[in-house]
Amino acid sequence: MQKLVYSFNEGSKDMRNLLGGKGANLAEMTKLGLRVPFGFIVTTDACKAYHADGGKLSEDLKTEIAYQMEVLENVAGKKFGDRENPLLVSVRSGAPISMPGMMDTVLNLGLNDETTEGLAALTDNPAFAYDSYRRFIQMFGDVVLGIPKSRFDEIFRRLQDADQKEIIAAYKALIVEETGMRLPQDPKEQLLEAVQAVFRSWNNERAVLYRQLNDIPDDLGTAVTVQAMVFGNMGDTSGSGVAFSRNPSNGEKELFGEFLVNAQGEDIVAGIRTPLQIAEMAEQFPSVYQDFQRIAEVLEKHYKDMQDMEFTIENNKLYMLQTRAAKRTAECAVRVAVDMVKEGLISKETAVARMDVGQIDQLMHPAFDHEAEAKAKILAKGLPASPGAASGRIFFEAKDAVAAAEKGIKAILVRQETSPEDLSGMAVAAGILTARGGMTSHAAVVARGMGKCCITGCSEIQVNEEAKTLTIGETVLDEGDSISLNGTMGHVYFGEVKNTETAFSEEFNQIMAWADEIRILKIRTNADNPRDAKQALEFGAEGIGLCRTEHMFFQEERIPLIRQMIMATSEEARREALDKLLPFQKGDFKGIYEVMEDLPVTIRLLDPPLHEFLPQTEEDTRELAELTGIPYENLARRAEELQEFNPMLGHRGCRLAITYPEIAEMQTRAIMEAAIEVSREKNIVIVPEIMIPLVGVDAELAEVKKAVVKVIEDCKKAYDAEIDYFIGTMIEVPRAALTAGEIAKEAEFFSFGTNDLTQMVFGLSRDDTGNIIRDYVEKGIFAADPFQTIDRKGVGSLMEIAVKQGRQARANLKLGICGEHGGDPKSIEFCHQIGLHYVSCSPYRVPVARLAAAQAAIRNEQ
Amino acid sequence: MQKLVYSFNEGSKDMRNLLGGKGANLAEMTKLGLRVPFGFIVTTDACKAYHADGGKLSEDLKTEIAYQMEVLENVAGKKFGDRENPLLVSVRSGAPISMPGMMDTVLNLGLNDETTEGLAALTDNPAFAYDSYRRFIQMFGDVVLGIPKSRFDEIFRRLQDADQKEIIAAYKALIVEETGMRLPQDPKEQLLEAVQAVFRSWNNERAVLYRQLNDIPDDLGTAVTVQAMVFGNMGDTSGSGVAFSRNPSNGEKELFGEFLVNAQGEDIVAGIRTPLQIAEMAEQFPSVYQDFQRIAEVLEKHYKDMQDMEFTIENNKLYMLQTRAAKRTAECAVRVAVDMVKEGLISKETAVARMDVGQIDQLMHPAFDHEAEAKAKILAKGLPASPGAASGRIFFEAKDAVAAAEKGIKAILVRQETSPEDLSGMAVAAGILTARGGMTSHAAVVARGMGKCCITGCSEIQVNEEAKTLTIGETVLDEGDSISLNGTMGHVYFGEVKNTETAFSEEFNQIMAWADEIRILKIRTNADNPRDAKQALEFGAEGIGLCRTEHMFFQEERIPLIRQMIMATSEEARREALDKLLPFQKGDFKGIYEVMEDLPVTIRLLDPPLHEFLPQTEEDTRELAELTGIPYENLARRAEELQEFNPMLGHRGCRLAITYPEIAEMQTRAIMEAAIEVSREKNIVIVPEIMIPLVGVDAELAEVKKAVVKVIEDCKKAYDAEIDYFIGTMIEVPRAALTAGEIAKEAEFFSFGTNDLTQMVFGLSRDDTGNIIRDYVEKGIFAADPFQTIDRKGVGSLMEIAVKQGRQARANLKLGICGEHGGDPKSIEFCHQIGLHYVSCSPYRVPVARLAAAQAAIRNEQ
Repeated sequence: MQKLVYSFNEGSKDMRNLLGGKGANLAEMTKLGLRVPFGFIVTTDACKAYHADGGKLSEDLKTEIAYQMEVLENVAGKKFGDRENPLLVSVRSGAPISMPGMMDTVLNLGLNDETTEGLAALTDNPAFAYDSYRRFIQMFGDVVLGIPKSRFDEIFRRLQDADQKEIIAAYKALIVEETGMRLPQDPKEQLLEAVQAVFRSWNNERAVLYRQLNDIPDDLGTAVTVQAMVFGNMGDTSGSGVAFSRNPSNGEKELFGEFLVNAQGEDIVAGIRTPLQIAEMAEQFPSVYQDFQRIAEVLEKHYKDMQDMEFTIENNKLYMLQTRAAKRTAECAVRVAVDMVKEGLISKETAVARMDVGQIDQLMHPAFDHEAEAKAKILAKGLPASPGAASGRIFFEAKDAVAAAEKGIKAILVRQETSPEDLSGMAVAAGILTARGGMTSHAAVVARGMGKCCITGCSEIQVNEEAKTLTIGETVLDEGDSISLNGTMGHVYFGEVKNTETAFSEEFNQIMAWADEIRILKIRTNADNPRDAKQALEFGAEGIGLCRTEHMFFQEERIPLIRQMIMATSEEARREALDKLLPFQKGDFKGIYEVMEDLPVTIRLLDPPLHEFLPQTEEDTRELAELTGIPYENLARRAEELQEFNPMLGHRGCRLAITYPEIAEMQTRAIMEAAIEVSREKNIVIVPEIMIPLVGVDAELAEVKKAVVKVIEDCKKAYDAEIDYFIGTMIEVPRAALTAGEIAKEAEFFSFGTNDLTQMVFGLSRDDTGNIIRDYVEKGIFAADPFQTIDRKGVGSLMEIAVKQGRQARANLKLGICGEHGGDPKSIEFCHQIGLHYVSCSPYRVPVARLAAAQAAIRNEQ
Repeated sequence: MQKLVYSFNEGSKDMRNLLGGKGANLAEMTKLGLRVPFGFIVTTDACKAYHADGGKLSEDLKTEIAYQMEVLENVAGKKFGDRENPLLVSVRSGAPISMPGMMDTVLNLGLNDETTEGLAALTDNPAFAYDSYRRFIQMFGDVVLGIPKSRFDEIFRRLQDADQKEIIAAYKALIVEETGMRLPQDPKEQLLEAVQAVFRSWNNERAVLYRQLNDIPDDLGTAVTVQAMVFGNMGDTSGSGVAFSRNPSNGEKELFGEFLVNAQGEDIVAGIRTPLQIAEMAEQFPSVYQDFQRIAEVLEKHYKDMQDMEFTIENNKLYMLQTRAAKRTAECAVRVAVDMVKEGLISKETAVARMDVGQIDQLMHPAFDHEAEAKAKILAKGLPASPGAASGRIFFEAKDAVAAAEKGIKAILVRQETSPEDLSGMAVAAGILTARGGMTSHAAVVARGMGKCCITGCSEIQVNEEAKTLTIGETVLDEGDSISLNGTMGHVYFGEVKNTETAFSEEFNQIMAWADEIRILKIRTNADNPRDAKQALEFGAEGIGLCRTEHMFFQEERIPLIRQMIMATSEEARREALDKLLPFQKGDFKGIYEVMEDLPVTIRLLDPPLHEFLPQTEEDTRELAELTGIPYENLARRAEELQEFNPMLGHRGCRLAITYPEIAEMQTRAIMEAAIEVSREKNIVIVPEIMIPLVGVDAELAEVKKAVVKVIEDCKKAYDAEIDYFIGTMIEVPRAALTAGEIAKEAEFFSFGTNDLTQMVFGLSRDDTGNIIRDYVEKGIFAADPFQTIDRKGVGSLMEIAVKQGRQARANLKLGICGEHGGDPKSIEFCHQIGLHYVSCSPYRVPVARLAAAQAAIRNEQ
């Protein structure tokens, strides 16, 4: 028969799944010989059985509990329900994965009218006994009987000057009123009810939501820890405390925590009385403090990690009630990990594996002062599109933001959505806020590339760009009003919120160096200009995985030329515009090669959704008419012809290169001339990687490649240069993945464009469905936003097909990813697992990617 | 060593790949003992080797040709190049698949200055000899030496009254002038040059284009047939003719053809002299005619098919020069197939397999009179979106077309593109012409559904809907001007072209009955209303595979209600609109059930690209404001909010049902109430099939299904009815196919929505990329338009994954297809191969689908 209850000396820390985190650690501390009030643990299996059985405790379970209670009585030397020497217990939940505050606890169980009197007599402390009984009734009423805590609080407030007994009577009356039954007086009945209440709390609303938000499976169940009570509320020789073995803010090696004299643990959490710093314990309880210091060290050494401990002092005796790995700030995590390696406690691999990549990302960006942020008024919530924090005055047009920045005013650019024409404003803004667009909208992608705080898809706000107003409900903000953005959370605050600055510590650099030793994946960056390339190099990038040439075209002096080219109705007119663009492009590429030197650089040929280049306004069109000498009406008609219902699925990528080969030819020429010239100037070897986008059919790639190779050969001849190169393709159209074997015959490398691949695999336009995706994630229809983390079942299975077919066709095929997923840790792990050679992400994600790649290598080591 | 040349008595009809169609049939006729001038065939392998070798005849080949020439001399009793009794030969191309007129022929080879004199003496017919020599020089000059035929024609015209010898001299001079060399006098040299010329002609421009257009592989190569000449131009006892064994127009069993006295075969083709009907041969050459009748019968019996034969009469002796399966009209094909089954010549399976489904489709639609069409002036070419022929006056707005139709005027609706608001106009129009949109654009799909002639993507025309003009180059047509459309070809003609009417013959019905016996796939139809359903039933549909409910919403009195629903900002307002829509929907479904009775009907829940429902104009919006009492400004803002960049990938399908479950609930109620009421009224068993569209994740389906099932159970209770039902989904999002195993746990049937699946797998919007697709097909990047024929490698492999995973998860999963591909023969064969249960297509494609399904079953029989 399955064992359903374990006493503390039957368990260990490795039984976390069965005994819950709390129970397993209590058993472990017991095993270590630390002073832990004895007790037992009802397993998560019992919880699962309870739910499977429609909410019934089995007879077997009841028998086992009764047995363990007897053992506990023997160890404690007290008896449950005994008037003279009553055993009291706490009943606590404890899930395999910590869900702090999500489930319920009952303390002081075992008290009833009689045992309370006994406790009063035994301790010679009636005030303590009645206080304990009152607390018990309230917790039992709330947790087991489901009477709102506020009802008890009401009574407590009303009778605050009354006698404790009066309050107890009123509490009991409330229970009768609410449930029609009396408070159970039999401690055994109390216990079984409390165990069931904890089981039920696994499925309470906040627990379910917490699991959803934290990716915790619903079928783990919770264990129940039943433990002899010790009392911190027995007067001035008693107390309770919580403490960390190191400073959780900065990682310094010192005890850090709080304690309260004459209090139970919950009083610290409740915050009614102000606790004392743990250091003061040294004075008030010197020997206990020494004891605790020693125990903290033992636990750290044993667990090889920084601990978060709870304890109670009962009559000058220290009892450990909990220990667990401590939550910590990023700064602390880095410092502790490095210190522990130096102390010989853990290996480099463990130090790296223990980093929370989400936290590391925070280190990269400015953040608000925690207290200031907690007090700030949230105006609205949007998508956390690019992390960081920013305050400033709002401006609604790029040029206004630029003008403000020139005057030294910190600007927040607020737009309905951004387009490439807003780039100048985005570049100078402290932060960006848009009402529309998702996590991979233009604003989000550009902002992340710039390492700039950005919130998108903030659908609660209405942006009127003409009136220059931002409306949220009744509130109307005008140009120049101040707001603050927390891009890590997606919160918009009213007014300015205080900022803190962070810089990389020596320890941080040490962790990253270890990560680099461990990881197998190379880390490249997505960069379209020398500035970003340089930034990424500083962050440790090993090449450029995606240089988007269309971004280069959006600069002010070029956009009329590119429009002229797109609007041209003859090859001749197109070539004329392209000839003017060539020197710009070549200059761009030279700048990038000068920064990257001999590191690999993958340049993607033009891939604009056509509509992004069209004149947006009549003014634009008139300007273009003047420039080109083409009549306005013709241009307007042509612009209409070029409009598409679904530009995402329209005339773009290699389709453009097939219709207008002269564009790809100009770009190839610019790439090759730049590479040859820079390699001569710097005397280095540059091997350009030319990437042809949006290929769905092998023949498309072959067609464009032919034109590209011809230009390359021409350049080599013209320069009398020997230069190697690679030609490859994005895998971003589902068909390319499904026919990767054919495509690999033409391609020397694949780069997974998982943004578009995800859009097409799901049939979801990222620009249009921000709300749907949020709704789906909340409802659990999506396990995660597929534009943030690769959807393994759908998109991932296509990638696996492509990798397999591709390698079969070409053994030395180079494989990478350049979608936004390249900076997402879970996606990076997937890339590691399917054997890609590199991931490419925006510059500010490079450190995270280095770390995530190392963690993937550690986790997936054979 | 590989044999490269076969004499006629070494081959047979089964060696078509090696000997070409012509050569194989000449060998076969030789084997049958028919009088065929002897000869030999240079194989297609020799042709391939020639090209692989960079255009060189191997020594082996030359040796084999010389040997076979000797054999031929012996059989003919003449000698090649002999002055006294010269052997003359024809040199003809003959590919494995017939490519009529695409490659070259040289007749009378073996003539030179000497042998011509000999021939003159031998035949005592100098005119004949010189005529033959002149013809030879011209053909050799044209075919072998590449001198344009027009240069010879010029001389012939200039010297038409001159002596033959003078013309011959001028021809020879032309050759020297053009090539710097004399006409080769050595017959052996002539022969080798001619063989090479035929080899080369495999790759001439028109042959390459022909192969592209007819899906003929480029690597087959051509054979060369060398055959002793017989002469139809030896005076009044000689002649040449071509004839069919049955009437190729109507299939009547009678010889049908033409002959010319004193002529070579090419004269009939050239059309310089008017040939006589074959029946007149009976008078002029009675015994030859009898001979020929007998031979035609022998050949038909032997080949078990109607023959197209060429013959020559030389001095009252009949020689067979060619036989092959005859090209025929659809009417003839049907009649001949049925007759031959009755005659015991072929099996039903053969009769069915032999039908050309493309031709059968023509039988379904009116066509232009061939002669009238040949004379008509082509204004423009577009996509053949829906077959048939129509003439009428052009109108640019639906209401104008309706007004015209009411006056009895035949209208052609001309639009930039159509939208659902044009439906009334499309319904009354004789034909539809749009400047934009592809083969699966709104206009195309609706027109095919209506069985109405339609041309889309006619990018040569400019449609100005406001000015009501249609401009093609310099030509401007106004409202009321006449045009004609050939929707089978995509041709637009100026003015009215004469029409012919067709009806189904008894034989046609016989063929279809046989097809129904043979096929395994069920054939359903896509129908949204009782009229279409009835039409489809008459065409043999066995159920409805797709009933699109959004089409029902586009009717004039409903569209304000559906707009009200979509624009509603609260559930209450939405329910109000839905309550008004419910009786309409229920009425729609009752109408359909009354027609279909107990046949299966799959109803798809609402799947509109949202933008199609938005008010299109300010007027629409004001109207809606009046109807709903919502301020105009609010509506306008809401409409803007609902605009999407890529509606194809936006808020549609089940996403809509998840956001607004009340829509799915209303539709389910309408479906179930209609089913219950009709089944009671008619005392039949109706099992509704409810299809949930655009599912990409199993949880989406589960969520919508829950709401649907709840309504169903409510209905059952309210009506106190027992009724079965199926709930299934479209597989149209790539992710659904990739995770079909999970989805099949929730779905009782899959229906492949291959239109959207193709769009997403290719990343190609069908509305935007008509030009790209055409361009790609022309360039050979696409083997076929993937929206017409399922792309097996990409879309098809996803379908296979879905079928496999789906069946594994649910053994009795019902599988069908309801995309446009359901009516395409090649796609139907694929559906048969992967084991779908049914295909569903528009009513007018049902007969084609029945036939194609039967052919698939025959071709894929194990």
